[in-house]
Amino acid sequence: MKAFASDNYASAHPEVLAAMAGANDGHAVSYGADPWTARALEILRGHFGEAAQALLVFNGSGANVVSIRAVCRPWEAVICADTAHVNVDEGGAPERIAGVKLLTVATPDGKLTPDDVRARVTRVGDEHAVQARLVTITQSTEYGTRYTPDETRALADTAHELGLMLHMDGSRLSNAAAGLGCGLGELVGDVGVDVLSLGGTKNGMVLGEAVVFLNPALADGAKYLRKQTLQLASKGRFLAAQFEAMFEGDLWRRNAAQANAMAARLAERLEEIPGVTITQRVQANGVFVVMPLEAADAVRPRWPFYTWDETKREERLMCSWDTTAEEVDAFAAALAEACGAVRA
Amino acid sequence: MKAFASDNYASAHPEVLAAMAGANDGHAVSYGADPWTARALEILRGHFGEAAQALLVFNGSGANVVSIRAVCRPWEAVICADTAHVNVDEGGAPERIAGVKLLTVATPDGKLTPDDVRARVTRVGDEHAVQARLVTITQSTEYGTRYTPDETRALADTAHELGLMLHMDGSRLSNAAAGLGCGLGELVGDVGVDVLSLGGTKNGMVLGEAVVFLNPALADGAKYLRKQTLQLASKGRFLAAQFEAMFEGDLWRRNAAQANAMAARLAERLEEIPGVTITQRVQANGVFVVMPLEAADAVRPRWPFYTWDETKREERLMCSWDTTAEEVDAFAAALAEACGAVRA
Amino acid sequence: MKAFASDNYASAHPEVLAAMAGANDGHAVSYGADPWTARALEILRGHFGEAAQALLVFNGSGANVVSIRAVCRPWEAVICADTAHVNVDEGGAPERIAGVKLLTVATPDGKLTPDDVRARVTRVGDEHAVQARLVTITQSTEYGTRYTPDETRALADTAHELGLMLHMDGSRLSNAAAGLGCGLGELVGDVGVDVLSLGGTKNGMVLGEAVVFLNPALADGAKYLRKQTLQLASKGRFLAAQFEAMFEGDLWRRNAAQANAMAARLAERLEEIPGVTITQRVQANGVFVVMPLEAADAVRPRWPFYTWDETKREERLMCSWDTTAEEVDAFAAALAEACGAVRA
Amino acid sequence: MKAFASDNYASAHPEVLAAMAGANDGHAVSYGADPWTARALEILRGHFGEAAQALLVFNGSGANVVSIRAVCRPWEAVICADTAHVNVDEGGAPERIAGVKLLTVATPDGKLTPDDVRARVTRVGDEHAVQARLVTITQSTEYGTRYTPDETRALADTAHELGLMLHMDGSRLSNAAAGLGCGLGELVGDVGVDVLSLGGTKNGMVLGEAVVFLNPALADGAKYLRKQTLQLASKGRFLAAQFEAMFEGDLWRRNAAQANAMAARLAERLEEIPGVTITQRVQANGVFVVMPLEAADAVRPRWPFYTWDETKREERLMCSWDTTAEEVDAFAAALAEACGAVRA
Repeated sequence: MKAFASDNYASAHPEVLAAMAGANDGHAVSYGADPWTARALEILRGHFGEAAQALLVFNGSGANVVSIRAVCRPWEAVICADTAHVNVDEGGAPERIAGVKLLTVATPDGKLTPDDVRARVTRVGDEHAVQARLVTITQSTEYGTRYTPDETRALADTAHELGLMLHMDGSRLSNAAAGLGCGLGELVGDVGVDVLSLGGTKNGMVLGEAVVFLNPALADGAKYLRKQTLQLASKGRFLAAQFEAMFEGDLWRRNAAQANAMAARLAERLEEIPGVTITQRVQANGVFVVMPLEAADAVRPRWPFYTWDETKREERLMCSWDTTAEEVDAFAAALAEACGAVRA
Repeated sequence: MKAFASDNYASAHPEVLAAMAGANDGHAVSYGADPWTARALEILRGHFGEAAQALLVFNGSGANVVSIRAVCRPWEAVICADTAHVNVDEGGAPERIAGVKLLTVATPDGKLTPDDVRARVTRVGDEHAVQARLVTITQSTEYGTRYTPDETRALADTAHELGLMLHMDGSRLSNAAAGLGCGLGELVGDVGVDVLSLGGTKNGMVLGEAVVFLNPALADGAKYLRKQTLQLASKGRFLAAQFEAMFEGDLWRRNAAQANAMAARLAERLEEIPGVTITQRVQANGVFVVMPLEAADAVRPRWPFYTWDETKREERLMCSWDTTAEEVDAFAAALAEACGAVRA
Repeated sequence: MKAFASDNYASAHPEVLAAMAGANDGHAVSYGADPWTARALEILRGHFGEAAQALLVFNGSGANVVSIRAVCRPWEAVICADTAHVNVDEGGAPERIAGVKLLTVATPDGKLTPDDVRARVTRVGDEHAVQARLVTITQSTEYGTRYTPDETRALADTAHELGLMLHMDGSRLSNAAAGLGCGLGELVGDVGVDVLSLGGTKNGMVLGEAVVFLNPALADGAKYLRKQTLQLASKGRFLAAQFEAMFEGDLWRRNAAQANAMAARLAERLEEIPGVTITQRVQANGVFVVMPLEAADAVRPRWPFYTWDETKREERLMCSWDTTAEEVDAFAAALAEACGAVRA
Repeated sequence: MKAFASDNYASAHPEVLAAMAGANDGHAVSYGADPWTARALEILRGHFGEAAQALLVFNGSGANVVSIRAVCRPWEAVICADTAHVNVDEGGAPERIAGVKLLTVATPDGKLTPDDVRARVTRVGDEHAVQARLVTITQSTEYGTRYTPDETRALADTAHELGLMLHMDGSRLSNAAAGLGCGLGELVGDVGVDVLSLGGTKNGMVLGEAVVFLNPALADGAKYLRKQTLQLASKGRFLAAQFEAMFEGDLWRRNAAQANAMAARLAERLEEIPGVTITQRVQANGVFVVMPLEAADAVRPRWPFYTWDETKREERLMCSWDTTAEEVDAFAAALAEACGAVRA
C-alpha cells in the first residue's frame, strides 16, 4: 500500500534501520549515557549551536509536552494557532499532563503573526487570568505552509519583548529547511527560537524526536521532566543511532526534499483538474484541496488520505520521503478520472 | 563492554531487529491500525486469553502509569512494596502524571503478602484519606525474587475481596515464567491479575512494552489514556513487529532462561567466595550481594554494576539474555581475586 | 463606598450574619456532619428535588471545578462560551486542577445554543482528540442575560442526546429565577440540568456556594473530590447557617429582585444619556454599556466599575442586593453630566 | 454538646464574629484589595517581620497545598513525618493537586529530626528519582508535641545546607507559642522557616488560614497559585477581619493558652486513672492515651472523641479555646468510673 494519508504511514529509511542494527553491539550504558547518544548530541550541536542542549524522546507529543513543562509555571499559558497539533491532536495532554491553558488564534494558513501574539497577551498581572508565557509555532505548519526566517525572527522578537518564550514544533522542520534551501539552525536558534521539538519520525525514522533547548536557561531540570513525562528510553542508543543516521549527513535533507518535490508535483497535477481547488500554498510536503465528495470517495480506497475539515470538504494529501513521481501521477490521473465522472 | 549493571545495558536480540526490518515494507496505517499490530495483539491473546485487550506502549514506566490511570479515580491510591519501580524509579510520574498516592509497604524481599494489603486498606469511606484501589506487584521483583501462581492468586483474592484490583508490573514477567517453567498467562490472568505491564525491552527488544487488560472493564477508555500519556507510537508496526518476534514463538523464554541460568551460575560462583554474601533468593536474573567495598571498587571498572543499597553495601548484579557463562566465570574469578586481596 | 464594580463588593445581608452568630453555639461535629448542614441540605432538596445531593463549598470556582471533576474522565472536555467564568476568570484551574480542555464557543450574548454544542462535538471516538463530555452554561450569564427554561431544556436534551451532561454555573441563579418569576428548581433539574454550582456569595452571603447533583449518578465519590479540591470547611455549620438564612425563606429572591430592579432602573436612566449605548439585554443584575472613555474615567473614581472589553470600550455595571435607587440615580446623573462635558 | 473530638468542633470566639459583623459595612473592593486585608497583612508583618508576605486562604489543606506548590517544581518532593496532616488527612491533594511525592519518616512523636531529613535526601541528581526540595513540620504536631526554637533552627539549617526549604504547618502554631511563652515569629522566621501555614480556624476563627512567606523569593507568583488552587475569597474582608480580631491583640494567645491549660489539666486527671496511659508528652492542646476499649466506648457517647490508632487502641483527646475546667473534670470522672467498671 502507498498512501497520501500521512507521512507517518511511510516506512523508515534503510539507512536508519542500518544504523540501529549497527548500534546493536554488545552492552551499552542505558538511559542515554552511551556513545551513540553522545555523538547524536554532538551532531545536534553542530546544527543548532554549541549551547544547544538536546534530550531525545519517543514522539512529537512527548517533545511538545516536555517543552511546555520546561517553560511554563502552573499559571502560565501557551499561545498557538487553533490548528496546531498541540491543540487538536495530542489528546488533551497539554492540559492534563502539562497543566496549561492553550490560548488559540484562528489563522487562515496555520501561521501566527506578531499581532496575533500581542492580541492574546492580556490581563498581565491579573491573578484571575492565566498569564501568557510561551508562543508555539509549527514549522512547517499543519497546513503545509512555512515561516520564513524573518517571520520567525519577528515572532521571537515580539515574544521576548513581551516577556514570553518561543517554541517551535519542528516535527517537519526538515521539510521547511529543505524547501527554503537553508540549514536547520537558520530556522531556529539563529532567529530567536528558545526551544524546539525536532522531528524525526515523519521524515524517515522508526521513531524518535528531540527537545532542543536553544536557550540553555530552560534546560535546567529538563532531564527530570523527560523522565517524569515518560519519555526516557532505556536503550537510548537505538534512538540516538537514528539521529546519527538522519542528521550527521544530509539524509534529513534528501528525504524532506523528496517529499516536498512530490507535494509540488502533486499540486501541479491537481491544479489541472477541473473541480479540484488547492486551498493553501504548497511549501512543504502537504497539499490541501477541496474536491467533490464523490471523487474523493472514489479514489480513497486505492489511495488513502484523510479529510482535514469536513465542513469545508477540505482534504489533506501528504507526501513522504518514499513517495514516487509515478505514484503522484497515478493518483492524479485516478482523481482526474473520478472528477470527470462526477461532472459527467 | 559487557556488564552486570542492568538488563537494559543488553543489546537487542537479532531476531527482534530482523523483525523490525521485515516490517519496513511500504506504507502502513499509523497509530496501531496496521497488520503487524493486529498480529501482535492476536499473539498476546494467545498468551493471556481471548478477552485480553492489549495496548502497545514505549516503556515500562509508561505501561505502569497508563495502568494506574485506567484503574484509579482521583482519590484512589495504590498499594506497593517500597522497593517497587513505580515508587522509586519513575521520577514521580505516578504522583504527578497519574495523580495517585502510593501506599508503600516495607518488605524483606520485594514481595507483598495478603496481610500487607489488608494492613494498608484503612479508613474506607473517610473522605480525608485516599482510598486504596489498586495493588501492584512486580513479577519478577526488583529483588530478583518471584511470586508463585498461588501467591499471586492469594493477593488477587484478597484485593478483590476488599474491592481492589491487582496490577502486575511484568517488566520481567518472562524471567518469572521461564524460572517457574510455566506459561505467561499462568502467572497473570489465570491467577486473577486484572491488568499487566508486559515487558519486552529488558528481555531483548529494542524498546516496547504492553498494557494488557485481563479485566476488560478496565480497558474502557484506555486508548485515550495511552495517547494522552504520550505512549502512542505513530509507526506502530515497529513496536508490534518486535512483539511478534518475541512472543509468537519461544524467544521470550529462550532469552529469559539464559538470563536466569546465568544468574544461577553467578550465584553459585559467588557463594564460594569468602566475604561475599548473597542477600536474596535467586529466582530470576538478578543476584543481590553484600561484598567488601574495596573488592566492589576493584572489579567495577571492568564489569560495571550498580549499588542497590548504600547503607547496607548491597550490590545488584543483573544478567541478561546475552550474558555468557564465560563472562560469569571471568567476573567471579575477578571478584574472588579482589576479595582475596582485601582479606590479605 | 458604594460601587457598580461587582456584586462581590457588596456586604453580607444582616440576616446571613445573624444566622452565623446563631450557629455559634457550643460544639458541633466538624466537616459537615452537623445539624445546620443537615437542615441546609434539606432546604436544598426542597428547591431541587428529593434526589438532589448537595455539597457545600467555599467559592464559585471551587464549585465549578468540583463539578467538572465529578463528570469528566481524564480525556474528556467541557464545552462553554468563551466568556464563561470557567474560561476566563478561574486562573487556569479547569485545566490545571480538573485537567480538562475547554472547547469554547464565541457567542453574541454569553449564551450557548444547541447548535453551538453540536458544532463542538467532533471526532467522537478519535483518541487523538479530547472527547466532549460536559456542557456548561452560566445562569444568569456573565453578560447579564439569562436562559429561559425552554432554552435550558433544549440544551439539556441536545447534550443528553449526544451522550453529554449539562452543568449550570449558577453563581447568579437567584437573579435569573427572580427575573423570570419562577423557582430555582424550575431552571435546573426540572429542565434537565445534571449538576449545578449554586451561588450564594454574590447574592448576600459572606461566602459559600454549593455543588448540587441533580443526576445522582454523578455524586458518587464527589465527597472525596470536594475534600481533595480543598473545598471542605472544617466548621461546616458556618457555611450551612448562611444557606439556611438565604434559601429557607425568600431572602434569595428578595436580594436578587432588588439587584435586578436596580439594574433595570440603571438601564432606563442610561438609555436617556446621549453617547451611552447599552450592549446587552438587561435580564439580571448587570448592565453592559459603551460610553466615552473620558466620561467613564470621570465618574469611575466616585463610582468604581470595571471595563469588560477594552477593545470595544465596553463597561460592566453590576448592581447588588444593597444597591439603592438613590445610588442608581446619582450615578446616572453623574454620568450624564460627564458625557455632556465630553460632548461640549 | 461539648466534646474532646477536635478543636474544629469548637465554636468561633465572639470577638471574631463581632469583627466580621464590623466588617459588614457597605461596599469593599473584592479579592483582598480592601482595607481589612491591608490591616491584617500589616498585623502579620508585625508578627513575622517586615519582609513577610502573606496570602489569606480558606483552610489548612489549602494553605499547605499552596505552600508546596510555591516551592516545588514538578520533579521535587516533600519530606514529612508519616503522621503529618499533609500525608494522612488531605485526601491526596498533595499528590493530585500539588503533584508531589511525599517522602515520609516514621517518628515516635510526630517530630522530624535533622537526621531524618538527611536520611531522605538521596539520589541527588538522579533523574529516575524525585528530588527532595521541601521539609514540612507541624507545629504543634499532630501528636500534641512541639518543636523548640532550637529544634526548628536545626531543621532549617539542615534543610538549607542540603539546598532544601523548610515549611511549617502551623495550624496550631498559637498553641506552640502559648506553650513556650514566646511570640509567633520566634518559632518561625526567626529560626529559619521559609514558609508557614498559619492557622486560625482551630483556635477560634470561623474559618481562615494564611500562607506566610518568610523567604520572599518564594512568594513570586504565589497569588496566581492561591487563585488557581481555589483559595481566593471574593469578599476577602470577612477573612481579614477575623485575622485582625485574632492576631492584632492577644486573642490568639488567650485562646491557645486556655486550650493548652485544659489539656494539661486533663492529662493530670487521666494520669490518676488506673488503666489509662498517656502516650505522648502534652505540650499543646491534645492528649493521647491508651485506655480500655470498653471504657472508651462507655464515655464516648456523652463526650465524643476519636480513635487515633486502632491497632494500638490509642485515643486522641483534643481541648479547645472553649473547653472548661468543669468539662475536663467531669469527663475525667466519667472515664475513671468507666475504667473502674471495666476492672471490676
